[in-house]
Amino acid sequence: MKVLKYAETPAIPVAPGVERRFIYTDHLMTVVVDLTEGPKETPDPFHAHPHEQTTYVAAGEVLFLMEGETPCRLKAGDMVAIPADKPHAIQLLTETARLIDNFTPVREDFIR
Amino acid sequence: MKVLKYAETPAIPVAPGVERRFIYTDHLMTVVVDLTEGPKETPDPFHAHPHEQTTYVAAGEVLFLMEGETPCRLKAGDMVAIPADKPHAIQLLTETARLIDNFTPVREDFIR
Repeated sequence: MKVLKYAETPAIPVAPGVERRFIYTDHLMTVVVDLTEGPKETPDPFHAHPHEQTTYVAAGEVLFLMEGETPCRLKAGDMVAIPADKPHAIQLLTETARLIDNFTPVREDFIR
Repeated sequence: MKVLKYAETPAIPVAPGVERRFIYTDHLMTVVVDLTEGPKETPDPFHAHPHEQTTYVAAGEVLFLMEGETPCRLKAGDMVAIPADKPHAIQLLTETARLIDNFTPVREDFIR
């Protein structure tokens, strides 16, 4: 059984204040993203990818931005869906937050 | 922006003690599953579907069972990946739990 036990899995550092842990099948990847060093004064830069994405906010609060749309404040329990190739960004509004980012296809760029 | 605000979204009752709320893109669905009426004495029946699945445990504890494999106890922060068509089941070990179930393709059977 392909299982990720959070407490036994080393985090992958991505950037200052950003760590990830992930699991995946052939076409689906789920990433636990732990954010620290908040709150932030401004949003992170917009980025886009051909993968479709959903995000579940597991803890904390973020401002979620999508190109050409009104930013939306999301807190624990909330979700957002991001079409392929749509530029998006977040701004961390709390000291810490945890996002569950889901992608199809798998983010091969996350796997070394 | 396709957003689900948990507090403003009515739950869809699925079975006694099981509620869901979901969001989706063209090929990806994320479902917040709230479980109550636990702990359970025995696992739920095995089921399978052609969709690939990942599950993130957001709260509580469950025993996760996959056909032919040793059951695995999962708690908040843990994840499991389920290949297409693989029979699987859960047993709720705490009074309540929240699972974040992700599927590709979209579970059209969840959409009325």
